[in-house]
Amino acid sequence: MADEHKLETLPLPDPPQKSPEKKLHLNLIHNYPQKNAEILSSQYGFNIFLAGLLLMFAWAIHAVGITDRDLLSYLITLMLIQLVWMLWYIFGSYTQRRSIIEKDTDAGARWLRCGITLFAVITLILDSFKIGYYIGYSECLSITEGIFPVTHTIHTLLQVYFLWFHSKDVIQSFKTLERFGLIHAVFTNLLLWANGVLSESKHQLNEHKERLITLGFSNITMDDHTPECNCTSNVCSIFSQGIYYLYPFTIEYHILASTMLYVLWKNIGRTVKHHQQQKIHFKFHGITAGTIMGLIVLTTTIAVLVVYLIQIGRSKSKSESALTMFYVFAITVLTLMCTAGIIGLFIYRLENKSLDDSESPAKKLDSDLLVGSACGSWLISWGSILAIICAETHPDYAWYNLPYSILVIIEKYIQNLFIIECIHRKEEEPMDGRTIERIFSMSNRSTLSLTPSYEVFNESVTICNKEFPYMSNSELSLGDASAEDKKNQENNNSIRLAPSIIAMQATRSAKLNKKRRILKNIAAFLFLCNISLWIPPAFGCRPQYDNGLEEIVFGFEPWITVVNLAMPFSIFYRMHSASSLFEVYCKT
Amino acid sequence: MADEHKLETLPLPDPPQKSPEKKLHLNLIHNYPQKNAEILSSQYGFNIFLAGLLLMFAWAIHAVGITDRDLLSYLITLMLIQLVWMLWYIFGSYTQRRSIIEKDTDAGARWLRCGITLFAVITLILDSFKIGYYIGYSECLSITEGIFPVTHTIHTLLQVYFLWFHSKDVIQSFKTLERFGLIHAVFTNLLLWANGVLSESKHQLNEHKERLITLGFSNITMDDHTPECNCTSNVCSIFSQGIYYLYPFTIEYHILASTMLYVLWKNIGRTVKHHQQQKIHFKFHGITAGTIMGLIVLTTTIAVLVVYLIQIGRSKSKSESALTMFYVFAITVLTLMCTAGIIGLFIYRLENKSLDDSESPAKKLDSDLLVGSACGSWLISWGSILAIICAETHPDYAWYNLPYSILVIIEKYIQNLFIIECIHRKEEEPMDGRTIERIFSMSNRSTLSLTPSYEVFNESVTICNKEFPYMSNSELSLGDASAEDKKNQENNNSIRLAPSIIAMQATRSAKLNKKRRILKNIAAFLFLCNISLWIPPAFGCRPQYDNGLEEIVFGFEPWITVVNLAMPFSIFYRMHSASSLFEVYCKT
Repeated sequence: MADEHKLETLPLPDPPQKSPEKKLHLNLIHNYPQKNAEILSSQYGFNIFLAGLLLMFAWAIHAVGITDRDLLSYLITLMLIQLVWMLWYIFGSYTQRRSIIEKDTDAGARWLRCGITLFAVITLILDSFKIGYYIGYSECLSITEGIFPVTHTIHTLLQVYFLWFHSKDVIQSFKTLERFGLIHAVFTNLLLWANGVLSESKHQLNEHKERLITLGFSNITMDDHTPECNCTSNVCSIFSQGIYYLYPFTIEYHILASTMLYVLWKNIGRTVKHHQQQKIHFKFHGITAGTIMGLIVLTTTIAVLVVYLIQIGRSKSKSESALTMFYVFAITVLTLMCTAGIIGLFIYRLENKSLDDSESPAKKLDSDLLVGSACGSWLISWGSILAIICAETHPDYAWYNLPYSILVIIEKYIQNLFIIECIHRKEEEPMDGRTIERIFSMSNRSTLSLTPSYEVFNESVTICNKEFPYMSNSELSLGDASAEDKKNQENNNSIRLAPSIIAMQATRSAKLNKKRRILKNIAAFLFLCNISLWIPPAFGCRPQYDNGLEEIVFGFEPWITVVNLAMPFSIFYRMHSASSLFEVYCKT
Repeated sequence: MADEHKLETLPLPDPPQKSPEKKLHLNLIHNYPQKNAEILSSQYGFNIFLAGLLLMFAWAIHAVGITDRDLLSYLITLMLIQLVWMLWYIFGSYTQRRSIIEKDTDAGARWLRCGITLFAVITLILDSFKIGYYIGYSECLSITEGIFPVTHTIHTLLQVYFLWFHSKDVIQSFKTLERFGLIHAVFTNLLLWANGVLSESKHQLNEHKERLITLGFSNITMDDHTPECNCTSNVCSIFSQGIYYLYPFTIEYHILASTMLYVLWKNIGRTVKHHQQQKIHFKFHGITAGTIMGLIVLTTTIAVLVVYLIQIGRSKSKSESALTMFYVFAITVLTLMCTAGIIGLFIYRLENKSLDDSESPAKKLDSDLLVGSACGSWLISWGSILAIICAETHPDYAWYNLPYSILVIIEKYIQNLFIIECIHRKEEEPMDGRTIERIFSMSNRSTLSLTPSYEVFNESVTICNKEFPYMSNSELSLGDASAEDKKNQENNNSIRLAPSIIAMQATRSAKLNKKRRILKNIAAFLFLCNISLWIPPAFGCRPQYDNGLEEIVFGFEPWITVVNLAMPFSIFYRMHSASSLFEVYCKT
């Protein structure tokens, strides 16, 4: 391994002396083009992912001959391969001290790593619950159900360590093997995510069916997976209940991990422009209004969720009042969010800052994920709208569903615009200190020499042009005058201009601070709202199931399929936009 | 409209005199950042697409209250909006003569436009069939079924005109409206594609069910859409039969159009590097072996298809022999294709050319589509593999399915690598003429002045280094010697080297020609093979339906759903890779 590594990083010593076969061999290893290595590994990734998805699908539809054991064995194998690769990589980076360790400053932000660690801790609790559950039912459960959580625990621990210390790496050597390892890790996490989503959906569907049975629909078959023996300890039911409250966090953990790994994969072999590291600082001041409103929304959401879960499925009237309550609440929140988003976009237009065109994989992925995952909830919303339009009879609460669905579409539309514009904005270069100093020094020097002061003056005009695009033409129109005129006027102008620039700078920064404070408030409010809207669907409040109207129009199974496919993306959207809004808040 | 356009392209005259509201208004129109305009329009596109997909889904599953008419009205509306936009654009580009009309040389290649025109002609025939069919059954068909083909005809004519003359445009003005128009066009075509795929799948499924009924499975319900009145002319059955033979071409037409429109959309506002236009020439010489083998495969495929369609579903034994014949034939072809692909990749490694890193939307889309659409058939193949592994009993012919499915995966894996590497290779700069001249002129000049000749000498070494990476170190090691040594040796060396370079150049181009001829043969062979493999699934030879094994393992409905979702991508893959291989052939 050590030899191979040397060959990769050092220049080749006297290649002509090698035999043709050896030359070819080296050629095959070293000069494999980057684009192809990318395709080579991504195709491998797609294949293990598709095979895994089909296994899950087969298991979910109770295909002949495919058991839980097959699926879990497949996942365990994938996790073990990833473990071996991560150990190799970590070991390699300590012993070899790779020649150039470049870092991508956009990738693996500290708050992202903190977030993933938090989710990972909850995932570890879930794994321990699963182990406890297995021990309780060990008589009648297959051994794979015990091995799986154990492997998953080790996998989680090592992966968090790996992401914590290596998520900013821009790998420049050993590319092919590292590409395979990373893409394997990406798709392993995606499969674990899909597996979590599947278990969660099955559980939600069963709860929904139980409610329907309570309401008197009898022709429904339950999809039950309870073991066929008795639990040997007393806490089994606590474990099996608790697991489903922890699942939403595990699901987020895996999707977050896979996005971070994907950015790592995309960064392999990239040449990073060394722009100054933008340290993001979280400061909590001046955002009282946004935070308070956000916290009100958050507490109300939890209250609504509790009432909803208690009321729904008890009786027809209680269900209907619960649905009405949820819709009215959601419509209010979404309207507020839309307003906040529109105000934010409007302020952006007033500021007229240019966007950063540099393509960073982390930023690109962020915006792609926002739009991509929003599609999930758009699909559900369009389904609801279609159902309301086409249905023959409408219960009263169904009419609330129409504005709710439309607002869900509009709110995500606006919010995506707001987040993506902020992510792609150029960092502001603070003008305050140095530039003003230079303008002063220029006015002092201007009596001594003509040319340098003229240059500095021009610079200050350029700065003004940048900062006040609509004022420069008239007030600072000197930039457009002919060079000779300028040279004549310059001594006076430069001295006269310097104080006026400072005055303008002062009003400007006051205005800017005001705008910035509004933007920060909006970001904080939207952040808390997104967290709030993540909670209901993640913990079982899914009016798309309970509403009934869509099920009548589309039929029970087709609609449930649509919801089960789209809902995970919709839930992921909320968490992802919350994390993006946190970034927006810190950047503003 | 004309005023608006002026405002967009001309610099603003004295903005400070405008009122603040006007300033803001202008600000909103002009300085809308590119990234956001992209997100704004793509989100709109996703929404019309998702709404359309749900309508189709609802129609396909016979949702309550959703008829054929609703779906067709939606599609007609979309097409009409696109028509208005295209007319506006075409009219605009003639009357205004947009300030800078840049062209993207990678986009809208001539052969692509020829291909799309061919498909469009067949689409027009299909539309006339549909109109004829409507006239025949006009008594009992809704008026929308008549309006649809008429609108579609106009839409097709104008769209082909638009793509023929504007597909290379790099739009620099009026960005927001043009982005919306183009993304609307992209998703309209995608919806028309999905609609075609849906009709085609329904037809295939019905044929499959008919076969099953013939074989004695009675508990199958047909999904019939024949009108409830009699045809007033005699040719109705010809029309309804003919429509399904023409559908595959319409499907290809729409997906091709949407990819070309997508590239146009992606190109808006891009700054194109003005590299020399690479004219692709199609010359037919020296590819006899590849072409002959390809043509043999093509004719055999057609023969196999005819036999398959005659035999399948007649009786159990005839079906089995048809399946066995198909698998044996496909295994042979796929093995040959794999071999050809591996040889091609091997030659690439021998040549060791650097790849072009410039990101062109057309190239990126090409490779994304290859990998993305390959996923469709990989999904089906993994399904088959899983079914064979898990099934309890295996009919004889099922065992042929295993190597077939594995080969399908491997062949696409290799072929994608082969195509994508070629697409991204740098164009060769012909060294023959000018460089050699310069080397000669250098050796003549070298007695007069030292510095320039040294420079030219260095240049020639660099060229050699590039062309013979492993020879440069020893034979042309002068490049590494210290500058003083070089200056002393240079007069002799430069004169001595020039002829040797020419000799090397001669052997090199002979070798290169040989390699190139092999590559051209491979490309031609693979091209014809892909056309061949496109034919069977497009015209009803789908062993994934008839095989039976997967249906037993997964169940009839789940498996049919998987096949119906994945098959369109699998079919598209073959056509798309054929068109890419044509490009590979021309570039080699």
